[in-house]
Amino acid sequence: MKTFTTEHRVIYGDTDPFNVVYYANYFDFFERGRTEMFRELGVTYKEVSSMGVYLPVSETYCKYHKPAQYDDLLVIETRLAYVKRVSIKFEYRIYVKNSDELLVAGYTVHGFVNKDRKLVRVPEDIYNRVKDLLPLEEEGK
Amino acid sequence: MKTFTTEHRVIYGDTDPFNVVYYANYFDFFERGRTEMFRELGVTYKEVSSMGVYLPVSETYCKYHKPAQYDDLLVIETRLAYVKRVSIKFEYRIYVKNSDELLVAGYTVHGFVNKDRKLVRVPEDIYNRVKDLLPLEEEGK
Amino acid sequence: MKTFTTEHRVIYGDTDPFNVVYYANYFDFFERGRTEMFRELGVTYKEVSSMGVYLPVSETYCKYHKPAQYDDLLVIETRLAYVKRVSIKFEYRIYVKNSDELLVAGYTVHGFVNKDRKLVRVPEDIYNRVKDLLPLEEEGK
Amino acid sequence: MKTFTTEHRVIYGDTDPFNVVYYANYFDFFERGRTEMFRELGVTYKEVSSMGVYLPVSETYCKYHKPAQYDDLLVIETRLAYVKRVSIKFEYRIYVKNSDELLVAGYTVHGFVNKDRKLVRVPEDIYNRVKDLLPLEEEGK
Repeated sequence: MKTFTTEHRVIYGDTDPFNVVYYANYFDFFERGRTEMFRELGVTYKEVSSMGVYLPVSETYCKYHKPAQYDDLLVIETRLAYVKRVSIKFEYRIYVKNSDELLVAGYTVHGFVNKDRKLVRVPEDIYNRVKDLLPLEEEGK
Repeated sequence: MKTFTTEHRVIYGDTDPFNVVYYANYFDFFERGRTEMFRELGVTYKEVSSMGVYLPVSETYCKYHKPAQYDDLLVIETRLAYVKRVSIKFEYRIYVKNSDELLVAGYTVHGFVNKDRKLVRVPEDIYNRVKDLLPLEEEGK
Repeated sequence: MKTFTTEHRVIYGDTDPFNVVYYANYFDFFERGRTEMFRELGVTYKEVSSMGVYLPVSETYCKYHKPAQYDDLLVIETRLAYVKRVSIKFEYRIYVKNSDELLVAGYTVHGFVNKDRKLVRVPEDIYNRVKDLLPLEEEGK
Repeated sequence: MKTFTTEHRVIYGDTDPFNVVYYANYFDFFERGRTEMFRELGVTYKEVSSMGVYLPVSETYCKYHKPAQYDDLLVIETRLAYVKRVSIKFEYRIYVKNSDELLVAGYTVHGFVNKDRKLVRVPEDIYNRVKDLLPLEEEGK
């Protein structure tokens, strides 16, 4: 299963009085992860938008194992969990760089919608770019 | 099941290019909800901290039904789902004021920990304040 | 000089490891202040936008006197400093409720622009609503 | 005058309904800039904190020339404006990578304080690391 990685340095703006990243801010890191995954696949979110297709989050989850601290250099691992006719799911795992201790793990589910927020079928171009990331039996289209 | 409510006016700082609240920001609203619930129960998060007990989030989930928009006046409903020996769970539902259409629904699970982030038993005082919010059969202590 | 006030309860999401509000977040409070000022004047930002006029910030400043802390109930005071042909300036002062100790003071300057971000003259309706907030000699139109 | 640079990719979480970076979020980018400047000078903010010295912002300013947009790769340029007995000032300029069009310019002034937020003299080690960044006549100590 192909995994994409991007990095983020924790600043004071990310943290709370316990000197750790505030729980909501990991969802920004998840966005960072999926954005860079798309970029590496050769199509940016911005290009998808310019096709009139958007991927609003319909569901998200995060399990916090160990807190990320101020000034940590985080590695955000993103992988595709599935792509279906009208939805796509990403999974994320965050570590401190050069450590194998898991900090948080979570996922986001997104619908493909048009500008009126009506569900639409995944664009063929997107589907083709991501399908090879999946084991054959998980292709959901 | 007793429900606590608080309000939040959506500002530009909460929103994204789709003119709706950015998905991560609902978790700030959830914090606002549980903070005011505690206050109404007669004990603030700040007072709990001053006992040397903290409630970091161990898990969170959010389902997005319909987006909150710029300038919406949101009502954040919070209720206790359970309180156990070392953990507590809150559930949240967010609406636009004077509407009954659900925008988002989610939950947070928190451990009770000491300043070294070791799990500790829920303080008796907290337990006593929240237990009456639960139906008898759900008291998890 | 008429002053408008709105309130904000400080949550963990607003703070940093020093248990005080992170310096960037006061600008969210400033937005909250000017938004409610407009609402009290009988025209919302949202209505101004629907006229095709927008007020992007062209300049901002903040002086930090004393930090706002976690769980403080803040009072955000907003007043009009000037309104000119193509720009408007607001001033802000933030206190803890029922205290007269100034925490921060700042300002924002905004241009009136159309959807292409070209400067436009302040709409007559807006000008009329705000001009009475100014001493006669400061009317800049 | 030596300039330090760091990069930031704009995500949806940074932006507002106008598809541009929300005005408060540039201050996060400024923090990112000065943090990386310190790191390049061989001493991190975290190390300064561990000496019991902190640098809270006492004043900040930003002039917005042209908005940064979603997915822009920003270059944050940071330089030392002065270092005095009890304070330090940084200046920032933000561009889109490989463009010479200025988006925003601003500054932050910081006091050196101890854990009780009392002003203290700049630590010798910090002073020595930064003083060579200044033209001789601007050394303010």
